[in-house]
Amino acid sequence: MPTPPSLPKMEYRFLGRSGLQVSAISLGGWLTYGGHVEKENSLACMKAAYDSGVNFFDCAESYSGGKSEEVMGEAIKRFGWKRNDLVISTKLYWGAAFGDNPVNNKGLSRKHIIEGMNASLSRLGLDYVDLIYAHRPDRLTPMEETVRAFNYLINTGKAFYWGTSEWNADEIASAWRYADKLGLIGPVMEQPLYNMLDREKVEREYAHLYREVGLGLTVFSPIKSGILSGKYRNGVPPDSRFAQEHVEFIAGYWKRTGKEKWDSVIEQVNKLEPIAKDLGVSQSQLALAWVLKNPNVSSAITGASSPDQVYDNVKAIDAVDKLTPEIMAKIDEILENKPPAIIPRF
Amino acid sequence: MPTPPSLPKMEYRFLGRSGLQVSAISLGGWLTYGGHVEKENSLACMKAAYDSGVNFFDCAESYSGGKSEEVMGEAIKRFGWKRNDLVISTKLYWGAAFGDNPVNNKGLSRKHIIEGMNASLSRLGLDYVDLIYAHRPDRLTPMEETVRAFNYLINTGKAFYWGTSEWNADEIASAWRYADKLGLIGPVMEQPLYNMLDREKVEREYAHLYREVGLGLTVFSPIKSGILSGKYRNGVPPDSRFAQEHVEFIAGYWKRTGKEKWDSVIEQVNKLEPIAKDLGVSQSQLALAWVLKNPNVSSAITGASSPDQVYDNVKAIDAVDKLTPEIMAKIDEILENKPPAIIPRF
Amino acid sequence: MPTPPSLPKMEYRFLGRSGLQVSAISLGGWLTYGGHVEKENSLACMKAAYDSGVNFFDCAESYSGGKSEEVMGEAIKRFGWKRNDLVISTKLYWGAAFGDNPVNNKGLSRKHIIEGMNASLSRLGLDYVDLIYAHRPDRLTPMEETVRAFNYLINTGKAFYWGTSEWNADEIASAWRYADKLGLIGPVMEQPLYNMLDREKVEREYAHLYREVGLGLTVFSPIKSGILSGKYRNGVPPDSRFAQEHVEFIAGYWKRTGKEKWDSVIEQVNKLEPIAKDLGVSQSQLALAWVLKNPNVSSAITGASSPDQVYDNVKAIDAVDKLTPEIMAKIDEILENKPPAIIPRF
Amino acid sequence: MPTPPSLPKMEYRFLGRSGLQVSAISLGGWLTYGGHVEKENSLACMKAAYDSGVNFFDCAESYSGGKSEEVMGEAIKRFGWKRNDLVISTKLYWGAAFGDNPVNNKGLSRKHIIEGMNASLSRLGLDYVDLIYAHRPDRLTPMEETVRAFNYLINTGKAFYWGTSEWNADEIASAWRYADKLGLIGPVMEQPLYNMLDREKVEREYAHLYREVGLGLTVFSPIKSGILSGKYRNGVPPDSRFAQEHVEFIAGYWKRTGKEKWDSVIEQVNKLEPIAKDLGVSQSQLALAWVLKNPNVSSAITGASSPDQVYDNVKAIDAVDKLTPEIMAKIDEILENKPPAIIPRF
Repeated sequence: MPTPPSLPKMEYRFLGRSGLQVSAISLGGWLTYGGHVEKENSLACMKAAYDSGVNFFDCAESYSGGKSEEVMGEAIKRFGWKRNDLVISTKLYWGAAFGDNPVNNKGLSRKHIIEGMNASLSRLGLDYVDLIYAHRPDRLTPMEETVRAFNYLINTGKAFYWGTSEWNADEIASAWRYADKLGLIGPVMEQPLYNMLDREKVEREYAHLYREVGLGLTVFSPIKSGILSGKYRNGVPPDSRFAQEHVEFIAGYWKRTGKEKWDSVIEQVNKLEPIAKDLGVSQSQLALAWVLKNPNVSSAITGASSPDQVYDNVKAIDAVDKLTPEIMAKIDEILENKPPAIIPRF
Repeated sequence: MPTPPSLPKMEYRFLGRSGLQVSAISLGGWLTYGGHVEKENSLACMKAAYDSGVNFFDCAESYSGGKSEEVMGEAIKRFGWKRNDLVISTKLYWGAAFGDNPVNNKGLSRKHIIEGMNASLSRLGLDYVDLIYAHRPDRLTPMEETVRAFNYLINTGKAFYWGTSEWNADEIASAWRYADKLGLIGPVMEQPLYNMLDREKVEREYAHLYREVGLGLTVFSPIKSGILSGKYRNGVPPDSRFAQEHVEFIAGYWKRTGKEKWDSVIEQVNKLEPIAKDLGVSQSQLALAWVLKNPNVSSAITGASSPDQVYDNVKAIDAVDKLTPEIMAKIDEILENKPPAIIPRF
Repeated sequence: MPTPPSLPKMEYRFLGRSGLQVSAISLGGWLTYGGHVEKENSLACMKAAYDSGVNFFDCAESYSGGKSEEVMGEAIKRFGWKRNDLVISTKLYWGAAFGDNPVNNKGLSRKHIIEGMNASLSRLGLDYVDLIYAHRPDRLTPMEETVRAFNYLINTGKAFYWGTSEWNADEIASAWRYADKLGLIGPVMEQPLYNMLDREKVEREYAHLYREVGLGLTVFSPIKSGILSGKYRNGVPPDSRFAQEHVEFIAGYWKRTGKEKWDSVIEQVNKLEPIAKDLGVSQSQLALAWVLKNPNVSSAITGASSPDQVYDNVKAIDAVDKLTPEIMAKIDEILENKPPAIIPRF
Repeated sequence: MPTPPSLPKMEYRFLGRSGLQVSAISLGGWLTYGGHVEKENSLACMKAAYDSGVNFFDCAESYSGGKSEEVMGEAIKRFGWKRNDLVISTKLYWGAAFGDNPVNNKGLSRKHIIEGMNASLSRLGLDYVDLIYAHRPDRLTPMEETVRAFNYLINTGKAFYWGTSEWNADEIASAWRYADKLGLIGPVMEQPLYNMLDREKVEREYAHLYREVGLGLTVFSPIKSGILSGKYRNGVPPDSRFAQEHVEFIAGYWKRTGKEKWDSVIEQVNKLEPIAKDLGVSQSQLALAWVLKNPNVSSAITGASSPDQVYDNVKAIDAVDKLTPEIMAKIDEILENKPPAIIPRF
């Protein structure tokens, strides 16, 4: 299947205050490769992404027990991609190979960071990754030990940059405090949840870190597990391949937040439909473009179960410029969740 | 021989202020493997420990001239244990392979720390140990040289953490002073003698180090060479396999401390018997549980000459919670050696 | 072709405030090897240079898409030169192997500096270079990242010294600021354009850096693409092998600066002819000697398309001492571009 | 030839304020191995030294163009000595393999220190030396570059300690200043000329360095090329194997210092003869013992052209204790060169 000629030119953004550039749209291994998507289809999605200009592929030791990394490695070999053209990441926290005793195979101790990195590189078939993330904070391991261990990875050439995923702002600041004190390298990027429905962390909590430490963001779940695509408008699509999974997902959501909350969310999402229509894009593309409109976002990590879905995601790039201040204001009005501006002290 | 189903769930504790977790009960190579216990029996003890949840195995270059490390390496290979499931330690100070000239094959010079580490790893058949100890202080080598050399081991990936064994509190503090000054890693754990009869160092001398540098303890001799098991109640057991050794041990003790002191110690130990009986545990288990009751103890290193003895040790974990404040007070009354509380300045 | 016996003894100069000595005349790969000069001829030029005492050979990952490095490696092997007799440099900025996606294959990010260095060493067939340059400033990558990455190359033994090419004085000073703050190694040399017609940067802008950080210079284009040789006196030489290229070069110059400027430059150059004649040297040699007269110049990088041209360049060394203060003043009068002296604050 | 049973027990001394111990008597490669002594004889001398308890063997890249290192390597292999029993040194400054162009194959630049170390290790057939010396100061290379390069050798495991040879006190202090500033390792030992006739540097110039930086000394020429052995009492011994060399040596001495000076030196040396006789030792042994009497001397490097000469040197150890304060005063009276005491400021 040839790449559609109508794709927009990929946009590359600097990863925070680093010298590395990542594609604004990236592909994540959580659902797309190594997971429930069948392998040949996964590889086709990865190729579609690469051919569309995606250079950043995201993995984690924990995704499908390490399989996302294995499929990533297979893609690089099969398609003959050059290492220097790629930005490969992985994340350490939950060991992919628990062994008999999980006790030191998770968290951010020096032991797991080094052993986990070696195991990930072995699954990937690579000498190094570009980005290594601390996949959640580990509040039981001293921050200094974690900062030193990630610097060990960089100093031994096993990773180029390190970052965090779902850390609090003060935890990121604390990591930088140790890095500065010891003359070490601090975390350059964070991988948070960010989408129209989850704004607090990215738009308010991290605000001063963009300026202070040059934090870059590689955000996940930009369409919030499909909710922002509008597909739940009429309940679960009955003939969907993932119908059963959807049912469970929605059931889970209900249980946690209540039916009332769910209905109000679906109502909000429905109100976004006319805006998407006016712009000539799908609701998914509107949601993705809205995420990329935030200049602190270096890349939005997307999932896909077919090459066409990859192309649809990439096309969202064209929609970013269509999001005028007026339209952004209209969206804020619908969402009713814009965090209050941070007033600088005076 | 299958693992008894009645074993308690192993408890894991953080090694001081590090991110590493060690089993509260661990197995030491001093007497158990590589020493006078026959090899197949040693390996059976190690398997029994591993199957009971023990993840920390302690060696030293000096134990049986390096044989504890060789047997350790053999166990890992024979039982197919995963490296990441294990916390392996060794200790440097007395070189296991003296060569013709012992002069630089002991102490904590840069030369012996590097050469000793390489020799230990080669005997273990491993790329790295988790813990490396300075097996005694070396008051003739500058502290800075020792601190730098252990950091060299960590920086070259040959060890994850370094610590001390039988150092004075001020020597540990001094190591941290150089580490802080130079931005290096300080010793995270100490391996002292600790049991009901030897309390001063752990309970008083190190007190401020737990708070200041987060010192963790992996204590040895929790049953004081068997004295606390009550087996010397009636003199040396005549048909004991180690009778001769016991005689020599006791003779040695007499010579050093006098028959009077010995008798008074045995009298004290006898008074502990009813407490053990009341709790439904052996005297050895009482002694072990008492050591683990101290929250600054990360792990108690035990020896064993049969798998059953390993299981008996592990069962002590169940007794820890039975040690109520009242019982602890009663024990203190019998032992008459509780160090006076440290009064903070005011 | 034997080396002419009449060649002057090569002069070696310290590379700024370093312990490395480079030949005052060096050979650059930009035009000479790997480029449009045919390979066997390139190798002959390199041998002629080596036999004349040239020890410094300059490459870049970008010169002819990496071919200058490949030919350099071939020369070392073919002629059996000893590695320790040579000072080999290369420069990173534009990746020689762009792959499919140039996005991270240029600039001074940690990723490109490490990947680019590895690729250059592989093309050169060497374990290390003596000098590694940042080939232009990268104003989008944080200076700290660049300084750390070049130190990574030095710490891993892949380069001995690092420097810059065509950076502004304040950018060099800023690199040193980070190096000093972090206890790292700063850039020891700069590779600027320097010749009779382009004096501002070397003679004025960098002035305080010679004193402050001991900056050394390896200057390129000492004859300004041939203009200072006098060969454009009568327009483009019609039968020149490079006539077509010359026409294009001159056309390009015209477009950028205008015919008027060009004519005035040629007029100035013509006025230098009698001075060269009086000294008994060619105009090219005068231009080269004039560059070497500046004590801040460690080496002048020359090009050549034949061994004879190499020898002619080397002979310029004899002319340096002939440049008396009186002659230097006469040249300044003709050039009318001597930067005003920097008045120290008082 | 068996080792004579009458040899004294070798004494080991700490190398300054380091954790390394060296034999008080050591063997130097300058004249003994790789030089004019025939190889099998050299190896016999080395074995005699080793069997006498000598653990420190001194080499240099420049001794006999690298041959001292090659013979050293051969001795280790042939006699099956264990690496950890040995303290092997070498010295960098004059490259042993000059190649075609000596320009960067000497001095203390980063280039020569790294290239020279690699070449020395290759000649020695070793992975590392214990001691690496800067063989003379290099006043043209910045001290910081030299200090960093020796630390590079230590950090990459190619050497354990670094030191200097024939540096001035202020140069050693300056090296320590950079080491302290940058958190690096300073030079722990110096290799100076020291004997009864050359006392100024060791006894006066370096005085504060013993206290301040813990400088250790491995002194060379303790018998001053044989002068202190008394063998020149009656001019050059006519049938000596080295007669011709002696003639040249003495001729050289005359030329430099004048016949008058020479005669007065021989007269002084003659006056030492009765002292040696009284102690029942040879004049050489007296001279050696006198050097070892200085507690700042870690080792005296000796030469030998036969195993018997090695044994004679080792026996000097027994004479050290015989040098009472009274005898030392008598010697000072004869030598008339005791540097004035350094009066501490008050």
